Amino acid sequence: MAKDQEPLLAEERPSSERSSERNIEEEDALLTGQQKAQSRKYGWPFWREVGAFTWALLATVLVIILGVLYQHQQTAHPSESGGWEEDWKPSGKRNMIFMISDGMGPTSLSLTRSFRQTQSGLPVDDVLVMDQHLIGSSRTRSTSSLITDSAAGATAFSCGLKSYNGAISVLPDHSPCGTVLEAAKKAGYMTGLVVTTRITDATPACFAAHVNLRAEEDKIAEQMVGEYPLGRVVDLMLGGGRCHFLPNTTEGSCRQDDIDVVKMAEAKDWSFVSDRKSFDGLNLGIGVKLPLLGLFATTDIPYEVDRRQMNDVFPSLDEMAQTALNALSEATRDSDKGFFLMIEGSRIDHAGHSNDPVAQVHEVLAYDKAFASVLEFLDKDDVEGVLVGTSDHETGGVATARQLHKEYPIYRWYPDALLNSTHSAENLAAQLAHHIKFHPPLGKPAISNYVRAILLEQGLGVHDATDAEIDAILDTSDGALPTVYVFADIISRRAQVGWTTHGHSAVDVNVYTSNPKHARPLIGNHENTEIGDFIREYLDVDLEGVTKELKEKSALLANDWMGKPIADVQSLAELDHYAGDFKKRSLEDCGCGLKH
Amino acid sequence: MAKDQEPLLAEERPSSERSSERNIEEEDALLTGQQKAQSRKYGWPFWREVGAFTWALLATVLVIILGVLYQHQQTAHPSESGGWEEDWKPSGKRNMIFMISDGMGPTSLSLTRSFRQTQSGLPVDDVLVMDQHLIGSSRTRSTSSLITDSAAGATAFSCGLKSYNGAISVLPDHSPCGTVLEAAKKAGYMTGLVVTTRITDATPACFAAHVNLRAEEDKIAEQMVGEYPLGRVVDLMLGGGRCHFLPNTTEGSCRQDDIDVVKMAEAKDWSFVSDRKSFDGLNLGIGVKLPLLGLFATTDIPYEVDRRQMNDVFPSLDEMAQTALNALSEATRDSDKGFFLMIEGSRIDHAGHSNDPVAQVHEVLAYDKAFASVLEFLDKDDVEGVLVGTSDHETGGVATARQLHKEYPIYRWYPDALLNSTHSAENLAAQLAHHIKFHPPLGKPAISNYVRAILLEQGLGVHDATDAEIDAILDTSDGALPTVYVFADIISRRAQVGWTTHGHSAVDVNVYTSNPKHARPLIGNHENTEIGDFIREYLDVDLEGVTKELKEKSALLANDWMGKPIADVQSLAELDHYAGDFKKRSLEDCGCGLKH
Repeated sequence: MAKDQEPLLAEERPSSERSSERNIEEEDALLTGQQKAQSRKYGWPFWREVGAFTWALLATVLVIILGVLYQHQQTAHPSESGGWEEDWKPSGKRNMIFMISDGMGPTSLSLTRSFRQTQSGLPVDDVLVMDQHLIGSSRTRSTSSLITDSAAGATAFSCGLKSYNGAISVLPDHSPCGTVLEAAKKAGYMTGLVVTTRITDATPACFAAHVNLRAEEDKIAEQMVGEYPLGRVVDLMLGGGRCHFLPNTTEGSCRQDDIDVVKMAEAKDWSFVSDRKSFDGLNLGIGVKLPLLGLFATTDIPYEVDRRQMNDVFPSLDEMAQTALNALSEATRDSDKGFFLMIEGSRIDHAGHSNDPVAQVHEVLAYDKAFASVLEFLDKDDVEGVLVGTSDHETGGVATARQLHKEYPIYRWYPDALLNSTHSAENLAAQLAHHIKFHPPLGKPAISNYVRAILLEQGLGVHDATDAEIDAILDTSDGALPTVYVFADIISRRAQVGWTTHGHSAVDVNVYTSNPKHARPLIGNHENTEIGDFIREYLDVDLEGVTKELKEKSALLANDWMGKPIADVQSLAELDHYAGDFKKRSLEDCGCGLKH
Repeated sequence: MAKDQEPLLAEERPSSERSSERNIEEEDALLTGQQKAQSRKYGWPFWREVGAFTWALLATVLVIILGVLYQHQQTAHPSESGGWEEDWKPSGKRNMIFMISDGMGPTSLSLTRSFRQTQSGLPVDDVLVMDQHLIGSSRTRSTSSLITDSAAGATAFSCGLKSYNGAISVLPDHSPCGTVLEAAKKAGYMTGLVVTTRITDATPACFAAHVNLRAEEDKIAEQMVGEYPLGRVVDLMLGGGRCHFLPNTTEGSCRQDDIDVVKMAEAKDWSFVSDRKSFDGLNLGIGVKLPLLGLFATTDIPYEVDRRQMNDVFPSLDEMAQTALNALSEATRDSDKGFFLMIEGSRIDHAGHSNDPVAQVHEVLAYDKAFASVLEFLDKDDVEGVLVGTSDHETGGVATARQLHKEYPIYRWYPDALLNSTHSAENLAAQLAHHIKFHPPLGKPAISNYVRAILLEQGLGVHDATDAEIDAILDTSDGALPTVYVFADIISRRAQVGWTTHGHSAVDVNVYTSNPKHARPLIGNHENTEIGDFIREYLDVDLEGVTKELKEKSALLANDWMGKPIADVQSLAELDHYAGDFKKRSLEDCGCGLKH
C-alpha cells in the first residue's frame, strides 16, 4: 500500500508548485510596480481563483482517499489483538503445502533437539528448523475416544469434521465427507501426496479415499488411483505400500484379490515408478509427466536411521518432497490455480509405537529436513504459498525423563546413549529373525554372542548388555514381549527415555507455519478440525459441493463401495465411562518394561 | 486512533458546507439575473477566493496529517510477518503479572481439559481459560542438566540467565544476578509474590533472594523480608512456609536457628497475617497496608482438592491472587509506575512428583481460575498491563495414555475414574499415618477395612481395590514404595494415566499471554531466559545495575551470605555424557508401578 501512497502525494505536488509559481509572479509585480501582461479574457484573479479551487479540490480528493486508506488499514491491522484473524487470505494464485508429523508430540521435539545438540556439538540454544516456526497447538480427540487414531485425525484435517477412530473420510453416520484435496482438484488445483509409509495408510488415504475402516487398504488403493465416484483426484503419489497395488498372484502382493491396481492406474494415464533408478530418472521432479505414482517399498520405506545404511536404495522423505514440489510447481506454471500437497513424516508414529528413541530422533530430523526444503521452495517460488505443519496425535507417551529405580531420580536424560545406535529396534529384530532362519540350528552361546556382538554392540551401540537382557531378546515363550520392544527398551533405559504406552496419547500437538500472517487463524490452541477449516478457507474451495457429489454418485454404486459399515462405532456419549472393565484385567505390571 | 480521525473529518465539513452555501448564492444570482448586495470593501469574488484558499489550506493540512498517520500505521503494523516484534512496548505506566504453573507440561492440559469436560458435561471443544491464550512454548534446560529444576528454571525468568540446578538467582560462578523484581523495585514499581507452597521455595525465592543452593530456606526467609544487601524489595508476599519464619524455640518452626524472622519483618514495617480470619480482614486487598507478609500454612497450602474439604481454613490461590492485584493496584494508584506481581500455581509440580492425577487436575483448574481473575483485572483496570504465563518445567512425564498390559492397548484414557476422588494421595497417606498413630494397635483386618472403606472408597472413589493393592498400601518393609505413590498409582491405573518418573522431564512448556500484541517477542518457541528478557524489556528496568550493586555490597558482607559455595556444580561441557554409570544400577523395573 505504501506504493499507492507515493503517486497520490506526487499528484498533489504540481498543484502546490503551480501556486508557488504564481506567488513568484505576484512578487515580480510588487517589485517592478507593474502588472505583468495577462491573457486578455481571463486575468490573474481568475487564474488565482481557479488554481485555489483546483488545489482545494485535489486536496479534498486526497483527504477522502487517505481517509479511506487509513480506515482500511485500521480494520486490517487493528491495534488490539482481537482482530488478528482478518485479512489473512491471499487473493490470487496460491499453493498450500500441508505437512503431517504422524505421532510427533511436543516431547519428541525436546528429545530430538538435545540429541542433535549432543551429536553435533551445537550450543544449548540451537533449535530445529520447525522450532523457529511454532505458532500454536491442536487438540486431537475423535468422536469415539479422547485418544484419536490417525484415521480420525486425518479426517479432521481432510474434511474439517470429527469422526470415529478408523474412519477414512467417512462420518459417524457412514456417509462420505468431501476432502480438501478432492475440492482442490475440482477447483483446478493440482494435488499430491508424499509419505514414508504405505500410500494406502490412514493419513494419506483420508485425502483421496472413503472407506468405513482404515484396514480396507485394497479398496483404498483402487480409489486413490481414481476408481471411485469422483474419478482421479490425485496428480502425484510418492511413498511405500506397493503390495496393495499388486495382484495376489504376484510376489510382493498383500492384496486379498488378484486386481492389478498398477495396471488399473496405467489405464488411467498414471506413470508408475518403483525403484531408485526410476526415482533418479524423475530428476527431482523436473520435466516429470503427471499423474505420477511412485511406490518405492513393498510396505513402509525403512526408518531413516536404517535407510542410510542401505546404499540409498530407497528415496528419503526430503528427496520425495522436493520431487513433488518441483513437479507440481512446473505443472501449474501456466495455471491460474496452484497446488495442494500433503507431505507426511509417517514413521515418527511407528517409532513411537515401538518405543524406539533411536528411530524416533532420526525420523524427526528427516521430517525437519523436508520442512526446511519446503520453506526454501516457498522462499524462492514466486507464487504465493503457505506451509502449515502439525501432527495428528502423539504416540508412545514419550518423556525425556525416566525413573529406573525406586529411589528419587536425578534430573537427567542421556542423549549420548543414542549416538552410537546405527539401527532401529525394528531392523535389529528383523536381522535376528533372518539370522535364525538362514543359519542352521545354533546353540544358545553362539546366538547369544551374535546378539551381543552384532546386534547390541554394533547395531545399538550398547556394550554393557546383561545376560538377562540378551535372554529377554531371545525369549520366545508364550507371553514374551515382541523382540522389537525389547531392543527399544534396552536403548530407552540407557538414554533414560520413558514411555507410557505402545499406543497413542491425548496430548495437544504443535502447529507450525512458514508464515504466521497467512496462517493467522491457527495461532494459539485449536481443535484439529480447525486445521481442516483453515485449508479449505486458504484454498477457497467447496467441500460441501464435493460431499453432495459423493453422496449422489455413491447412491448409484454397490452398497459396500466404502467397505462394510462398522456396527460398533461408539458415540461420544459412551466414551468417557470406565465401565468397570478394569476388574476383568489382571493387575500385572505394564508389559512395556523388562522384568529382571 | 479511530477517535482521532473523527474530529479531523468533522473539522473539514464546515469548509465544504460553506462552499455549498456559496453555490446557492451563485445559483440565486443566475436565476434572478441580479447580483446580490455585497459588502462594499470585500466583494463576492474576494470572499470566494478567501474561502477557496481556506478550504485548500485546511484540506492540505488534513492531507499531511492523514499521510503521516497512514505512514505511522504502516510502520506499526507491517503487512509481512517479519516486523511483528516491533512496537510492542508500552510507553507509560504499566503493570506486569507473571504467572508460573510449576511443573505443568502440555500433557497436564489435555488431562485437565477432558477431566473438566467429563465432570461438567461440557462439549468436546470446551477449553480452559488458559487454552484461549496460548502463544508458544519455552525450552527449559539448565546449565547443569537437560532437565531443569525449579531453581534454575526461575533464575532463567528472574535474571534472564541460565544457571545450574539448585541456584537461587546465582550464576555458575557463584555470583549473584540482579532479578527483574529487584530491578522493578529500584525503578519505582511495587512488587508482589503469591504462591501455594512455601514462600521460601525455589520459584518465589529466585525473585528476591540469592543463595547458592535452594535448600537454604532459612537464609532465603531473612533475605526476602529485606535482610540482605538490597534491603526490602518486596511489598507483598502471600503463601505458605511459615515454619522458616519462626524461631526453632517455638512450635511450628522448621528453622535450624532461633532467629524470629516474623519479628525481623515487623521491625521493617511488614504487617504479618497468618490465618483465615486475618486473611478475610484483608478484604481481598482493599485498604491494605503494605508491606504485607501473609503466611497461611506451616509448609505448603493443601492441594486444592483437599483444601475445599477443610472449611476454607486456607485461602485459595485465586483469593490470594485477587488480594495481591487489588492491594498493589491501590498502592500504585497515584504513582507513575505500576507493579510487578508473580503468581505461582506451585503445587501442580507436587502432584506431578506424587504421580497423582487427582491432585494434578484440581491444581491446574485452580491455577486456571486465578488466570481468569488476572485477565478480568486487566480487562477492568485502566492502567496498561500484561499477563504472561508459563511453566518452569514438566513434572512426572505424565501422559494421558497408559498401557496396563502386554497386549496392544486400545486408545483410551478414563477421566471419569477421577470424578469421585475427593482427596489427594498425599492427604490419604497422611490420614492413614494419623489413623495408625492415634489408634491403639489394630489387627490387619481392621486396618485393611479402614483403608478399603474410608481411604479407597470414600477418599479415592475406588470400589474395586484388590487385596494386593491394600497390601501395597500397608507395606512398611524396607524398599517399599512411599504410601503416597501407591495411592496415586491405584487411581492413575484406573484412569489409564501414565507417568515415567517422580522427577521432572525435559519437554517444552507452554507460554500464554493476555495480549499477544504486548507479548509479541514471546510468540513461538523460545529459550526460558527469553522470558526473563521479556519481563525486563516490558518493565524497562536495569538488571545490570542491580547485579553491580549486589556485587559491590556483597563484597562488604560475610563470605557465606549466600550460603556455602557448591563445589560440584557441573558445567554444560560435562552434562551430556552417560559416563557408564548405568552399570552401577540394577536393572530392576521402574519403582513407580505396583507389582502383583
